Amino acid sequence: MKQQKLLISSARLKDTLEQFAQFGRTENNGVTRLSLSEADRLARDFFRSSCEELGMSVKVDDMGNMYAVLEGKENKAPVVIGSHLDSVKKGGRFDGVLGVVAGLEVARTLVENRITPTLPLMIVNFTNEEGARFEPSMMASGVLSGKFTKAAMVHKRDVDGITFEQALKSTGYAGKEENRLTEASAFLELHIEQGPILEQEVLSIGIVECVLGMVCYEIEVTGESDHAGTTPMEMRRDALFATNNIIAQAREQLSTIDHELVFTIGRMNVWPNIHTVIPNRVIFSLEARHKDPVVMKKVEEIIQGLTAISANEGCIITAKKMWDRSTVWFDQLLCDQLEGASKSLGYRYKRMVSGAGHDAQFIASFIPSAMVFVPSKKGKSHCEEELTSWEDCTNGVNVLLETVLSLQANH
Amino acid sequence: MKQQKLLISSARLKDTLEQFAQFGRTENNGVTRLSLSEADRLARDFFRSSCEELGMSVKVDDMGNMYAVLEGKENKAPVVIGSHLDSVKKGGRFDGVLGVVAGLEVARTLVENRITPTLPLMIVNFTNEEGARFEPSMMASGVLSGKFTKAAMVHKRDVDGITFEQALKSTGYAGKEENRLTEASAFLELHIEQGPILEQEVLSIGIVECVLGMVCYEIEVTGESDHAGTTPMEMRRDALFATNNIIAQAREQLSTIDHELVFTIGRMNVWPNIHTVIPNRVIFSLEARHKDPVVMKKVEEIIQGLTAISANEGCIITAKKMWDRSTVWFDQLLCDQLEGASKSLGYRYKRMVSGAGHDAQFIASFIPSAMVFVPSKKGKSHCEEELTSWEDCTNGVNVLLETVLSLQANH
Repeated sequence: MKQQKLLISSARLKDTLEQFAQFGRTENNGVTRLSLSEADRLARDFFRSSCEELGMSVKVDDMGNMYAVLEGKENKAPVVIGSHLDSVKKGGRFDGVLGVVAGLEVARTLVENRITPTLPLMIVNFTNEEGARFEPSMMASGVLSGKFTKAAMVHKRDVDGITFEQALKSTGYAGKEENRLTEASAFLELHIEQGPILEQEVLSIGIVECVLGMVCYEIEVTGESDHAGTTPMEMRRDALFATNNIIAQAREQLSTIDHELVFTIGRMNVWPNIHTVIPNRVIFSLEARHKDPVVMKKVEEIIQGLTAISANEGCIITAKKMWDRSTVWFDQLLCDQLEGASKSLGYRYKRMVSGAGHDAQFIASFIPSAMVFVPSKKGKSHCEEELTSWEDCTNGVNVLLETVLSLQANH
Repeated sequence: MKQQKLLISSARLKDTLEQFAQFGRTENNGVTRLSLSEADRLARDFFRSSCEELGMSVKVDDMGNMYAVLEGKENKAPVVIGSHLDSVKKGGRFDGVLGVVAGLEVARTLVENRITPTLPLMIVNFTNEEGARFEPSMMASGVLSGKFTKAAMVHKRDVDGITFEQALKSTGYAGKEENRLTEASAFLELHIEQGPILEQEVLSIGIVECVLGMVCYEIEVTGESDHAGTTPMEMRRDALFATNNIIAQAREQLSTIDHELVFTIGRMNVWPNIHTVIPNRVIFSLEARHKDPVVMKKVEEIIQGLTAISANEGCIITAKKMWDRSTVWFDQLLCDQLEGASKSLGYRYKRMVSGAGHDAQFIASFIPSAMVFVPSKKGKSHCEEELTSWEDCTNGVNVLLETVLSLQANH
């Protein structure tokens, strides 16, 4: 007979997620909880008091990151669970907060079962993951990892001109640099998938092996603005028609490289954008993501090739790389442990990749890290319709609990 | 030996055009003379005093249209020359004003040569042809022709919320309805071509036979917004990629109908227009112009056919007709007289069409009307670079003078 597993409380998890969903709740059951807003402050206060009620000590660092610690038997580097409490404007009730509440529920389960872990258990709330109020996204985990400098970040301004530093002070969550997360035994982030794959394949758990490498170009097409009624077709230099050719060509070529490649033209602006005037300028973004740098190299060659077409409606085409990032691979031993936990709990799971960015990708540069995904209904996120079933949320947290216990045992 | 022709003064025409170019002059030698602005008021004052100096009487109607009359030997319906003094923002020094100054120069030439015409000569300045401050364009000629109602037009507001009625009163050019133009022997409008054809064919004069019929559709493509990094290509409903297919198809089909057809996608907006999000909505304009209603009917069939594609990236496509207008044919006898004048003056000319709209197209509904085009350098208009050589301006006005004289003789 199999040993009885320790499981979290599904009802308590649901309650807690619903309580957090009150902070910044929107009319349509979503949340607007921009980083360091009043709604975010209330969520932080609630997170702090919930942890303190469990006997955890809470510290805050100079970027506003919050760390709640449940002491272990040994004063060693903790096992860390975390994510972020901020949301985009009119976002959902699961993105980010699930990974923080997961830590709280694991801690609660340990405490109510009077289990003192060997290694301390730490729960982290990273400040401003979304970048929806202050760009860039993953700001505070980026500072922890050295990807961004604090000096540059604190002066970032929101649309009202308020700096990150001012907003941080006004919430009362400006702490000390000495409290920053610098070492840990492991970092685990539970997050909604934000994509449709788990739902489509009827799986409960995704074990995330990497965050995809990515490149983003801005392509500018310059033609000539003339009167739409008086300029014969053969005398035009129409930037929009040239753009149309380029996009068709890009799609045709990019589609043949690898079926896992994703590429998107998300942004396009047309000038002067008047129905009676031939467009003289179009700027559009073209971003692509794949785990394999060889594939990404081909993508860049194709994009650069688009500018070399000599006779494209008489227009000039330039492509500028806006940014890129390499694929971040998570700790393979941790992934194996997450897989073992999923298997032992009897959940349907798969190893997969993350096309979206997460705090864990920065933390992975100095702490062994891994992520767990749970299904997003219809793949939706960053919107009020964002939905993950309570059962899937529960399963995800159980995988974390099982992994935390196994990390203690293996220690 | 040929009879010596009466010709206008090229130097005086240039001086007068340069004087008008001071009203609303921009840094780059263009003009911003929005309808009923202070710059427009100064131009109107100058036009009025210039006419009065010639002994002409000036009246103003309830839409602010100005009429200067040089009395004829007979108290009959006048021959009318005119256009508009308003411009777009950062427009040129020729569009509109050339047709008003042409009338002034014809009158000056008659007066200095002590010629009293048989029929009165009237010069008209139509209010708000451009529609750049108050939509729609050709507003006042539209009211004269019954195309628009005065009641609706006077409440049109500019971007600052000022109504047409308020602006008209503040300039002092609110006149009486009884002064409106209701009948005339002929209406002649000299205008820059605003297209590249005359320059390319090295011609001086275009005799405009019609203003092209036109149709404008707004096409909306609706897909689904998903995360650019987490949504596999085959699970997307990308409104921008669907749009790209539609445009390619529209171009292919429209290109085969008739080589004189012009069609333009001038305006396109993408939602949510963020580089990391798959577009769920694209709206674009598609307008086409041609003189032949049979061709225009085919255009509409093609546009409607675009919405019937069942499997276009999983998106829904709708096409809404925003407006259309039928081809307006000018008076063929007047066109013949303009052609005869051009020929007798030894100018290189052609009969052509107008792809752009002009006051004459509305006036043509109740007065025998015709237009003369002079070349636009590189086809440019509605911009500071707008340019027509002084020689071409002179030739155009000479064609009007010759035609006015011939209309008197034939009377």
